Amino acid sequence: MHILLTNDDGIYAKGLAAIFHELKAFGRVTVVAPESEQSAVGHAISLNQPLRVRQVTLDSDIMGWAVSGTPADCVKIAIAELLSYPPDLVVSGINLGPNVGINVLYSGTVSAATEASILGVRAVALSLDTYKNADFYTAASLARQVLTGLLDWSRWTPDICLNVNLPALPLDKVRGVKFTRQDIGPPVEHFERRVDPRERIYYWLAEINDREALDLATDFGALQAGYVSITPIHHDLTHYPTLENLLQIELGSE
Amino acid sequence: MHILLTNDDGIYAKGLAAIFHELKAFGRVTVVAPESEQSAVGHAISLNQPLRVRQVTLDSDIMGWAVSGTPADCVKIAIAELLSYPPDLVVSGINLGPNVGINVLYSGTVSAATEASILGVRAVALSLDTYKNADFYTAASLARQVLTGLLDWSRWTPDICLNVNLPALPLDKVRGVKFTRQDIGPPVEHFERRVDPRERIYYWLAEINDREALDLATDFGALQAGYVSITPIHHDLTHYPTLENLLQIELGSE
Repeated sequence: MHILLTNDDGIYAKGLAAIFHELKAFGRVTVVAPESEQSAVGHAISLNQPLRVRQVTLDSDIMGWAVSGTPADCVKIAIAELLSYPPDLVVSGINLGPNVGINVLYSGTVSAATEASILGVRAVALSLDTYKNADFYTAASLARQVLTGLLDWSRWTPDICLNVNLPALPLDKVRGVKFTRQDIGPPVEHFERRVDPRERIYYWLAEINDREALDLATDFGALQAGYVSITPIHHDLTHYPTLENLLQIELGSE
Repeated sequence: MHILLTNDDGIYAKGLAAIFHELKAFGRVTVVAPESEQSAVGHAISLNQPLRVRQVTLDSDIMGWAVSGTPADCVKIAIAELLSYPPDLVVSGINLGPNVGINVLYSGTVSAATEASILGVRAVALSLDTYKNADFYTAASLARQVLTGLLDWSRWTPDICLNVNLPALPLDKVRGVKFTRQDIGPPVEHFERRVDPRERIYYWLAEINDREALDLATDFGALQAGYVSITPIHHDLTHYPTLENLLQIELGSE
Protein backbone atom coordinates (compact mmCIF):
# COMPACT_ATOMS: atom_id res chain seq x y z
CA MET A 1 0.00 0.00 0.00
CA HIS A 2 1.18 3.52 -0.85
CA ILE A 3 0.15 6.18 1.68
CA LEU A 4 0.37 9.94 1.16
CA LEU A 5 0.82 11.69 4.49
CA THR A 6 0.04 15.38 4.98
CA ASN A 7 -1.20 17.69 7.73
CA ASP A 8 -1.96 21.32 8.51
CA ASP A 9 0.41 21.92 11.41
CA GLY A 10 3.32 21.90 8.96
CA ILE A 11 5.84 19.34 7.82
CA TYR A 12 7.98 19.68 10.96
CA ALA A 13 5.09 19.00 13.36
CA LYS A 14 5.46 16.22 15.92
CA GLY A 15 2.07 14.73 15.10
CA LEU A 16 3.18 14.02 11.54
CA ALA A 17 6.42 12.31 12.60
CA ALA A 18 4.57 10.15 15.12
CA ILE A 19 1.99 8.81 12.67
CA PHE A 20 4.66 8.37 9.96
CA HIS A 21 6.37 5.69 12.04
CA GLU A 22 3.11 3.83 12.63
CA LEU A 23 1.98 4.05 8.99
CA LYS A 24 5.16 2.30 7.83
CA ALA A 25 3.54 -0.91 9.09
CA PHE A 26 0.99 -0.60 6.28
CA GLY A 27 3.35 0.12 3.37
CA ARG A 28 5.27 2.91 1.71
CA VAL A 29 4.65 6.41 3.08
CA THR A 30 5.30 9.64 1.16
CA VAL A 31 5.16 12.95 3.03
CA VAL A 32 3.90 16.08 1.22
CA ALA A 33 2.96 18.76 3.74
CA PRO A 34 2.80 22.54 4.20
CA GLU A 35 6.13 24.18 4.99
CA SER A 36 4.50 26.16 7.79
CA GLU A 37 1.50 25.90 10.07
CA GLN A 38 -1.83 26.35 8.27
CA SER A 39 -4.38 25.96 11.06
CA ALA A 40 -7.92 27.13 10.38
CA VAL A 41 -7.27 27.76 6.71
CA GLY A 42 -10.49 25.96 5.91
CA HIS A 43 -10.66 24.27 2.56
CA ALA A 44 -8.43 26.88 0.98
CA ILE A 45 -6.51 26.41 -2.23
CA SER A 46 -3.91 28.77 -3.62
CA LEU A 47 -5.14 30.43 -6.78
CA ASN A 48 -3.48 33.82 -6.60
CA GLN A 49 -0.05 32.60 -5.54
CA PRO A 50 2.03 29.93 -7.19
CA LEU A 51 3.26 26.95 -5.16
CA ARG A 52 6.87 26.14 -4.47
CA VAL A 53 8.01 22.68 -3.49
CA ARG A 54 11.26 21.61 -1.89
CA GLN A 55 12.53 18.27 -0.67
CA VAL A 56 13.35 18.09 3.01
CA THR A 57 14.84 15.49 5.35
CA LEU A 58 12.74 15.26 8.47
CA ASP A 59 14.49 12.49 10.29
CA SER A 60 17.13 9.93 9.53
CA ASP A 61 14.51 7.99 7.59
CA ILE A 62 11.83 10.51 6.58
CA MET A 63 12.16 12.37 3.31
CA GLY A 64 9.36 14.66 2.33
CA TRP A 65 8.21 17.55 0.18
CA ALA A 66 7.46 20.88 1.82
CA VAL A 67 4.89 22.93 -0.11
CA SER A 68 4.31 26.69 0.20
CA GLY A 69 0.57 26.19 0.43
CA THR A 70 -2.37 24.70 2.27
CA PRO A 71 -3.16 21.06 3.10
CA ALA A 72 -5.57 20.87 0.16
CA ASP A 73 -2.82 22.28 -2.11
CA CYS A 74 -0.48 19.53 -0.87
CA VAL A 75 -2.89 16.76 -1.81
CA LYS A 76 -3.61 18.29 -5.22
CA ILE A 77 0.03 18.82 -6.16
CA ALA A 78 1.18 15.49 -4.71
CA ILE A 79 -1.29 13.54 -6.82
CA ALA A 80 -0.92 15.71 -9.94
CA GLU A 81 2.84 16.31 -9.97
CA LEU A 82 4.97 14.80 -7.23
CA LEU A 83 4.00 11.15 -6.88
CA SER A 84 4.96 8.75 -9.60
CA TYR A 85 1.79 6.70 -8.96
CA PRO A 86 -1.42 7.54 -7.10
CA PRO A 87 -1.67 6.73 -3.39
CA ASP A 88 -4.07 4.11 -2.08
CA LEU A 89 -4.75 6.18 0.99
CA VAL A 90 -4.24 9.77 2.14
CA VAL A 91 -3.69 10.36 5.86
CA SER A 92 -3.86 13.90 7.26
CA GLY A 93 -2.54 14.60 10.75
CA ILE A 94 -2.14 13.98 13.54
CA ASN A 95 -3.52 17.43 14.24
CA LEU A 96 -2.82 19.24 17.50
CA GLY A 97 -6.40 19.91 18.60
CA PRO A 98 -9.75 18.27 17.85
CA ASN A 99 -11.78 18.75 14.66
CA VAL A 100 -15.36 18.08 15.64
CA GLY A 101 -18.73 19.77 15.17
CA ILE A 102 -18.90 22.96 13.17
CA ASN A 103 -15.12 23.27 13.36
CA VAL A 104 -14.88 20.51 10.75
CA LEU A 105 -15.75 23.22 8.21
CA TYR A 106 -12.72 25.29 9.29
CA SER A 107 -10.28 22.43 9.48
CA GLY A 108 -7.25 22.27 7.26
CA THR A 109 -6.62 18.73 8.48
CA VAL A 110 -10.04 17.61 7.28
CA SER A 111 -9.79 19.63 4.06
CA ALA A 112 -6.79 17.55 2.96
CA ALA A 113 -8.86 14.39 3.39
CA THR A 114 -11.84 15.96 1.60
CA GLU A 115 -9.59 17.00 -1.26
CA ALA A 116 -8.38 13.41 -1.60
CA SER A 117 -11.94 12.13 -1.69
CA ILE A 118 -12.79 14.67 -4.41
CA LEU A 119 -9.90 13.22 -6.40
CA GLY A 120 -11.17 9.69 -5.76
CA VAL A 121 -8.60 8.60 -3.17
CA ARG A 122 -9.59 7.17 0.22
CA ALA A 123 -8.58 9.43 3.06
CA VAL A 124 -8.53 9.68 6.83
CA ALA A 125 -8.09 12.85 8.91
CA LEU A 126 -6.57 12.31 12.37
CA SER A 127 -6.86 14.86 15.19
CA LEU A 128 -5.90 14.68 18.84
CA ASP A 129 -8.18 16.19 21.46
CA THR A 130 -5.70 18.47 23.19
CA TYR A 131 -3.85 21.71 22.52
CA LYS A 132 -1.20 21.24 25.20
CA ASN A 133 1.30 18.57 26.26
CA ALA A 134 0.21 16.28 23.44
CA ASP A 135 1.42 12.68 23.60
CA PHE A 136 1.50 12.01 19.88
CA TYR A 137 3.18 8.62 20.28
CA THR A 138 0.26 7.23 22.26
CA ALA A 139 -2.14 8.89 19.82
CA ALA A 140 -0.31 7.39 16.82
CA SER A 141 -0.41 3.94 18.36
CA LEU A 142 -4.16 4.32 18.89
CA ALA A 143 -4.58 5.64 15.35
CA ARG A 144 -2.79 2.57 14.00
CA GLN A 145 -5.20 0.26 15.82
CA VAL A 146 -8.15 2.23 14.45
CA LEU A 147 -6.79 2.19 10.89
CA THR A 148 -6.23 -1.57 11.08
CA GLY A 149 -9.90 -1.95 11.98
CA LEU A 150 -10.95 0.27 9.08
CA LEU A 151 -9.13 -1.64 6.39
CA ASP A 152 -12.39 -3.38 5.55
CA TRP A 153 -12.72 -1.05 2.59
CA SER A 154 -16.01 -2.48 1.44
CA ARG A 155 -17.98 -0.34 3.87
CA TRP A 156 -16.41 2.89 2.76
CA THR A 157 -16.20 4.23 -0.79
CA PRO A 158 -13.39 6.55 -1.95
CA ASP A 159 -15.69 9.56 -2.37
CA ILE A 160 -16.20 9.61 1.41
CA CYS A 161 -13.42 10.43 3.85
CA LEU A 162 -13.22 9.59 7.52
CA ASN A 163 -12.78 12.26 10.16
CA VAL A 164 -11.13 10.53 13.12
CA ASN A 165 -10.73 12.28 16.47
CA LEU A 166 -8.58 10.67 19.17
CA PRO A 167 -9.02 11.31 22.89
CA ALA A 168 -5.89 12.53 24.69
CA LEU A 169 -5.90 9.61 27.11
CA PRO A 170 -3.62 6.71 27.97
CA LEU A 171 -4.56 3.68 25.86
CA ASP A 172 -6.13 1.83 28.78
CA LYS A 173 -8.45 4.77 29.47
CA VAL A 174 -9.81 5.01 25.91
CA ARG A 175 -13.37 3.67 26.07
CA GLY A 176 -13.55 2.38 22.50
CA VAL A 177 -14.57 3.60 19.05
CA LYS A 178 -17.85 5.24 18.02
CA PHE A 179 -19.01 5.92 14.49
CA THR A 180 -20.65 9.29 14.77
CA ARG A 181 -22.39 12.11 12.95
CA GLN A 182 -21.04 15.66 12.94
CA ASP A 183 -22.42 17.72 15.81
CA ILE A 184 -24.21 20.69 14.24
CA GLY A 185 -24.93 22.76 17.33
CA PRO A 186 -23.68 26.33 16.98
CA PRO A 187 -20.34 26.95 18.68
CA VAL A 188 -20.45 28.68 22.05
CA GLU A 189 -18.01 31.50 21.46
CA HIS A 190 -17.45 35.18 21.89
CA PHE A 191 -14.98 37.86 20.90
CA GLU A 192 -12.63 39.16 23.55
CA ARG A 193 -12.32 42.90 23.15
CA ARG A 194 -8.78 44.02 23.96
CA VAL A 195 -6.72 47.17 23.78
CA ASP A 196 -3.29 47.19 22.13
CA PRO A 197 -0.20 49.10 23.36
CA ARG A 198 -1.20 52.03 21.13
CA GLU A 199 -4.68 52.12 22.70
CA ARG A 200 -6.44 50.70 19.68
CA ILE A 201 -9.16 48.10 20.10
CA TYR A 202 -8.82 44.63 18.66
CA TYR A 203 -10.88 41.44 18.92
CA TRP A 204 -9.90 37.82 19.48
CA LEU A 205 -12.23 34.87 18.99
CA ALA A 206 -12.57 32.66 22.07
CA GLU A 207 -14.52 29.42 22.22
CA ILE A 208 -16.19 27.97 25.27
CA ASN A 209 -16.81 24.24 25.41
CA ASP A 210 -19.37 24.15 28.14
CA ARG A 211 -22.11 21.89 26.84
CA GLU A 212 -23.66 19.69 29.42
CA ALA A 213 -25.56 16.80 27.90
CA LEU A 214 -23.26 14.76 25.70
CA ASP A 215 -24.76 12.95 22.74
CA LEU A 216 -22.59 9.88 22.12
CA ALA A 217 -23.91 9.67 18.56
CA THR A 218 -22.04 12.89 17.66
CA ASP A 219 -18.32 13.47 17.14
CA PHE A 220 -18.22 16.07 19.90
CA GLY A 221 -20.06 13.95 22.43
CA ALA A 222 -18.23 10.68 21.78
CA LEU A 223 -14.83 12.37 21.98
CA GLN A 224 -15.67 14.20 25.20
CA ALA A 225 -16.77 10.90 26.72
CA GLY A 226 -13.41 9.26 25.97
CA TYR A 227 -14.18 7.44 22.70
CA VAL A 228 -12.39 7.61 19.40
CA SER A 229 -14.91 9.30 17.11
CA ILE A 230 -15.09 8.40 13.41
CA THR A 231 -17.37 10.47 11.18
CA PRO A 232 -17.77 9.72 7.45
CA ILE A 233 -17.90 13.02 5.58
CA HIS A 234 -18.55 14.03 2.00
CA HIS A 235 -18.25 17.08 -0.20
CA ASP A 236 -21.77 17.46 -1.57
CA LEU A 237 -23.16 20.36 0.46
CA THR A 238 -26.58 20.24 -1.23
CA HIS A 239 -29.42 20.02 1.28
CA TYR A 240 -31.76 17.72 -0.65
CA PRO A 241 -34.91 18.16 1.46
CA THR A 242 -34.77 21.92 0.91
CA LEU A 243 -34.07 21.40 -2.78
CA GLU A 244 -37.30 19.36 -2.99
CA ASN A 245 -39.22 22.22 -1.33
CA LEU A 246 -37.68 24.86 -3.53
CA LEU A 247 -38.42 22.95 -6.70
CA GLN A 248 -42.06 23.60 -5.95
CA ILE A 249 -41.62 27.36 -6.21
CA GLU A 250 -42.18 28.72 -9.65
CA LEU A 251 -39.54 31.35 -10.26
CA GLY A 252 -38.62 32.86 -13.59
CA SER A 253 -39.50 31.02 -16.77
CA GLU A 254 -38.04 28.38 -19.02
CA MET B 1 -35.78 44.08 7.17
CA HIS B 2 -32.17 44.41 8.32
CA ILE B 3 -29.60 42.96 5.88
CA LEU B 4 -25.94 42.32 6.64
CA LEU B 5 -23.89 42.59 3.46
CA THR B 6 -20.43 41.05 3.15
CA ASN B 7 -18.24 39.51 0.46
CA ASP B 8 -14.82 38.01 -0.16
CA ASP B 9 -13.51 40.36 -2.85
CA GLY B 10 -13.07 43.06 -0.17
CA ILE B 11 -15.12 46.02 1.00
CA TYR B 12 -14.11 48.19 -1.96
CA ALA B 13 -15.20 45.67 -4.60
CA LYS B 14 -17.63 46.80 -7.29
CA GLY B 15 -19.86 43.78 -6.82
CA LEU B 16 -20.59 44.81 -3.23
CA ALA B 17 -21.49 48.38 -4.15
CA ALA B 18 -23.80 47.22 -6.94
CA ILE B 19 -25.83 44.85 -4.77
CA PHE B 20 -25.90 47.37 -1.89
CA HIS B 21 -27.98 49.75 -4.00
CA GLU B 22 -30.46 47.02 -4.95
CA LEU B 23 -30.75 45.67 -1.39
CA LYS B 24 -31.85 49.07 -0.11
CA ALA B 25 -35.23 48.28 -1.67
CA PHE B 26 -35.69 45.54 0.96
CA GLY B 27 -34.71 47.51 4.07
CA ARG B 28 -31.69 48.68 6.04
CA VAL B 29 -28.32 47.38 4.84
CA THR B 30 -25.18 47.21 7.00
CA VAL B 31 -21.84 46.46 5.32
CA VAL B 32 -19.19 44.44 7.22
CA ALA B 33 -16.60 43.09 4.81
CA PRO B 34 -12.92 42.13 4.56
CA GLU B 35 -10.57 45.05 4.13
CA SER B 36 -8.77 43.22 1.33
CA GLU B 37 -9.50 40.48 -1.18
CA GLN B 38 -9.91 37.03 0.39
CA SER B 39 -10.62 34.80 -2.61
CA ALA B 40 -10.28 31.05 -2.13
CA VAL B 41 -9.81 31.33 1.61
CA GLY B 42 -12.34 28.54 2.06
CA HIS B 43 -14.26 28.55 5.28
CA ALA B 44 -11.36 30.06 7.18
CA ILE B 45 -11.64 31.82 10.50
CA SER B 46 -8.89 33.76 12.20
CA LEU B 47 -7.77 32.01 15.37
CA ASN B 48 -4.10 32.91 15.51
CA GLN B 49 -4.47 36.58 14.65
CA PRO B 50 -6.76 39.09 16.29
CA LEU B 51 -9.23 41.06 14.19
CA ARG B 52 -9.20 44.79 13.72
CA VAL B 53 -12.25 46.72 12.61
CA ARG B 54 -12.48 50.22 11.19
CA GLN B 55 -15.36 52.25 9.86
CA VAL B 56 -15.09 53.32 6.25
CA THR B 57 -17.12 55.46 3.88
CA LEU B 58 -17.56 53.66 0.60
CA ASP B 59 -19.72 56.09 -1.24
CA SER B 60 -21.72 59.19 -0.42
CA ASP B 61 -24.31 56.94 1.19
CA ILE B 62 -22.52 53.72 2.13
CA MET B 63 -20.89 53.42 5.52
CA GLY B 64 -19.33 50.13 6.44
CA TRP B 65 -16.94 48.25 8.67
CA ALA B 66 -13.73 46.89 7.18
CA VAL B 67 -12.42 43.82 9.03
CA SER B 68 -8.85 42.47 8.90
CA GLY B 69 -10.13 38.93 8.38
CA THR B 70 -12.07 36.51 6.23
CA PRO B 71 -15.73 36.60 5.13
CA ALA B 72 -16.64 34.11 7.89
CA ASP B 73 -14.86 36.34 10.41
CA CYS B 74 -16.92 39.29 9.19
CA VAL B 75 -20.21 37.50 9.78
CA LYS B 76 -19.14 36.26 13.21
CA ILE B 77 -17.91 39.63 14.45
CA ALA B 78 -20.79 41.57 12.91
CA ILE B 79 -23.37 39.46 14.70
CA ALA B 80 -21.43 39.17 17.96
CA GLU B 81 -20.04 42.69 18.31
CA LEU B 82 -20.85 45.25 15.65
CA LEU B 83 -24.59 45.13 15.00
CA SER B 84 -26.93 46.42 17.66
CA TYR B 85 -29.56 43.83 16.66
CA PRO B 86 -29.28 40.62 14.61
CA PRO B 87 -29.84 40.79 10.85
CA ASP B 88 -32.81 39.10 9.21
CA LEU B 89 -30.70 38.15 6.20
CA VAL B 90 -27.02 37.94 5.32
CA VAL B 91 -26.05 38.57 1.69
CA SER B 92 -22.54 37.72 0.50
CA GLY B 93 -21.31 39.06 -2.83
CA ILE B 94 -21.63 39.74 -5.62
CA ASN B 95 -18.49 37.70 -6.21
CA LEU B 96 -16.34 38.17 -9.30
CA GLY B 97 -16.39 34.61 -10.62
CA PRO B 98 -18.75 31.64 -10.23
CA ASN B 99 -18.96 29.38 -7.16
CA VAL B 100 -20.31 26.10 -8.45
CA GLY B 101 -19.43 22.43 -8.12
CA ILE B 102 -16.50 21.44 -5.96
CA ASN B 103 -15.38 25.07 -5.85
CA VAL B 104 -18.20 25.74 -3.40
CA LEU B 105 -15.92 24.15 -0.77
CA TYR B 106 -13.20 26.71 -1.50
CA SER B 107 -15.44 29.72 -1.67
CA GLY B 108 -15.10 32.59 0.77
CA THR B 109 -18.34 34.04 -0.62
CA VAL B 110 -20.24 30.89 0.24
CA SER B 111 -18.48 30.50 3.60
CA ALA B 112 -19.92 33.81 4.80
CA ALA B 113 -23.40 32.51 4.01
CA THR B 114 -22.66 29.16 5.67
CA GLU B 115 -21.38 30.94 8.75
CA ALA B 116 -24.63 32.89 8.95
CA SER B 117 -26.66 29.70 8.71
CA ILE B 118 -24.56 28.15 11.52
CA LEU B 119 -25.51 31.17 13.61
CA GLY B 120 -29.18 30.74 12.68
CA VAL B 121 -29.49 33.63 10.22
CA ARG B 122 -30.84 33.16 6.69
CA ALA B 123 -28.22 33.83 4.07
CA VAL B 124 -27.68 34.07 0.33
CA ALA B 125 -24.36 33.91 -1.52
CA LEU B 126 -24.29 35.72 -4.87
CA SER B 127 -21.67 35.05 -7.56
CA LEU B 128 -21.35 36.24 -11.14
CA ASP B 129 -20.17 33.85 -13.82
CA THR B 130 -17.29 35.87 -15.24
CA TYR B 131 -13.79 36.92 -14.22
CA LYS B 132 -13.49 39.76 -16.73
CA ASN B 133 -15.48 42.85 -17.75
CA ALA B 134 -18.14 42.11 -15.16
CA ASP B 135 -21.38 44.10 -15.47
CA PHE B 136 -22.29 44.10 -11.78
CA TYR B 137 -25.20 46.49 -12.27
CA THR B 138 -27.03 44.07 -14.53
CA ALA B 139 -26.13 41.22 -12.18
CA ALA B 140 -27.40 43.15 -9.15
CA SER B 141 -30.67 43.90 -10.91
CA LEU B 142 -31.06 40.20 -11.69
CA ALA B 143 -30.14 39.29 -8.11
CA ARG B 144 -32.83 41.62 -6.80
CA GLN B 145 -35.46 39.88 -8.94
CA VAL B 146 -34.28 36.51 -7.67
CA LEU B 147 -34.29 37.63 -4.03
CA THR B 148 -37.81 39.00 -4.42
CA GLY B 149 -38.90 35.58 -5.62
CA LEU B 150 -37.19 33.88 -2.67
CA LEU B 151 -38.88 35.93 0.02
CA ASP B 152 -41.31 33.08 0.52
CA TRP B 153 -39.31 32.07 3.60
CA SER B 154 -41.51 29.13 4.42
CA ARG B 155 -39.69 26.89 1.99
CA TRP B 156 -36.29 27.62 3.41
CA THR B 157 -35.19 27.32 7.04
CA PRO B 158 -32.41 29.50 8.53
CA ASP B 159 -30.00 26.56 8.96
CA ILE B 160 -29.79 26.27 5.17
CA CYS B 161 -28.22 28.94 2.98
CA LEU B 162 -28.73 29.54 -0.71
CA ASN B 163 -25.83 29.55 -3.14
CA VAL B 164 -26.96 31.71 -6.08
CA ASN B 165 -24.91 31.92 -9.28
CA LEU B 166 -25.81 34.52 -11.90
CA PRO B 167 -25.01 34.17 -15.60
CA ALA B 168 -23.02 37.04 -17.09
CA LEU B 169 -25.69 37.82 -19.67
CA PRO B 170 -27.96 40.73 -20.54
CA LEU B 171 -31.27 40.35 -18.69
CA ASP B 172 -33.17 39.40 -21.84
CA LYS B 173 -30.77 36.54 -22.52
CA VAL B 174 -31.09 34.94 -19.06
CA ARG B 175 -33.12 31.78 -19.54
CA GLY B 176 -34.70 31.68 -16.08
CA VAL B 177 -33.99 30.23 -12.65
CA LYS B 178 -33.16 26.62 -11.77
CA PHE B 179 -33.04 25.12 -8.31
CA THR B 180 -30.06 22.82 -8.49
CA ARG B 181 -27.81 20.40 -6.65
CA GLN B 182 -24.07 20.93 -6.32
CA ASP B 183 -22.15 19.30 -9.16
CA ILE B 184 -19.77 16.83 -7.55
CA GLY B 185 -17.69 15.85 -10.55
CA PRO B 186 -13.96 16.26 -9.91
CA PRO B 187 -12.52 19.48 -11.34
CA VAL B 188 -10.59 19.19 -14.59
CA GLU B 189 -7.38 20.92 -13.64
CA HIS B 190 -3.64 20.70 -13.80
CA PHE B 191 -0.58 22.45 -12.46
CA GLU B 192 1.38 24.62 -14.86
CA ARG B 193 5.07 24.09 -14.22
CA ARG B 194 6.96 27.37 -14.69
CA VAL B 195 10.47 28.67 -14.17
CA ASP B 196 11.09 31.91 -12.24
CA PRO B 197 13.71 34.59 -13.14
CA ARG B 198 16.18 32.81 -10.81
CA GLU B 199 15.64 29.52 -12.65
CA ARG B 200 13.66 27.93 -9.85
CA ILE B 201 10.59 25.85 -10.63
CA TYR B 202 7.16 26.83 -9.38
CA TYR B 203 3.64 25.54 -9.99
CA TRP B 204 0.36 27.32 -10.67
CA LEU B 205 -3.04 25.68 -10.55
CA ALA B 206 -5.03 26.00 -13.77
CA GLU B 207 -8.58 24.81 -14.27
CA ILE B 208 -10.14 23.69 -17.51
CA ASN B 209 -13.90 23.89 -17.91
CA ASP B 210 -14.34 21.56 -20.82
CA ARG B 211 -17.22 19.31 -19.83
CA GLU B 212 -19.49 18.41 -22.65
CA ALA B 213 -22.83 17.13 -21.44
CA LEU B 214 -24.48 19.71 -19.23
CA ASP B 215 -26.79 18.47 -16.50
CA LEU B 216 -29.35 21.23 -15.91
CA ALA B 217 -30.11 19.78 -12.49
CA THR B 218 -26.66 20.85 -11.26
CA ASP B 219 -25.34 24.31 -10.43
CA PHE B 220 -22.56 24.00 -13.00
CA GLY B 221 -24.85 22.81 -15.80
CA ALA B 222 -27.66 25.27 -15.20
CA LEU B 223 -25.28 28.23 -15.06
CA GLN B 224 -23.44 27.19 -18.21
CA ALA B 225 -26.78 26.93 -20.00
CA GLY B 226 -27.71 30.52 -19.10
CA TYR B 227 -29.89 29.99 -16.03
CA VAL B 228 -29.59 31.50 -12.58
CA SER B 229 -28.65 28.53 -10.40
CA ILE B 230 -29.86 28.34 -6.78
CA THR B 231 -28.48 25.53 -4.60
CA PRO B 232 -29.57 25.10 -0.96
CA ILE B 233 -26.53 24.11 1.08
CA HIS B 234 -25.94 23.06 4.66
CA HIS B 235 -23.08 22.54 7.06
CA ASP B 236 -23.57 18.95 8.17
CA LEU B 237 -20.90 17.09 6.23
CA THR B 238 -21.87 13.68 7.65
CA HIS B 239 -22.49 11.10 4.93
CA TYR B 240 -25.38 9.24 6.54
CA PRO B 241 -25.48 6.19 4.22
CA THR B 242 -21.82 5.46 5.01
CA LEU B 243 -22.46 6.03 8.71
CA GLU B 244 -25.14 3.33 8.52
CA ASN B 245 -22.66 0.94 6.92
CA LEU B 246 -19.91 1.72 9.40
CA LEU B 247 -22.19 1.23 12.38
CA GLN B 248 -22.27 -2.41 11.39
CA ILE B 249 -18.53 -2.83 11.92
CA GLU B 250 -17.56 -3.91 15.38
CA LEU B 251 -14.52 -1.95 16.38
CA GLY B 252 -13.15 -1.50 19.86
CA SER B 253 -15.35 -2.16 22.82
CA GLU B 254 -17.86 -0.36 24.98
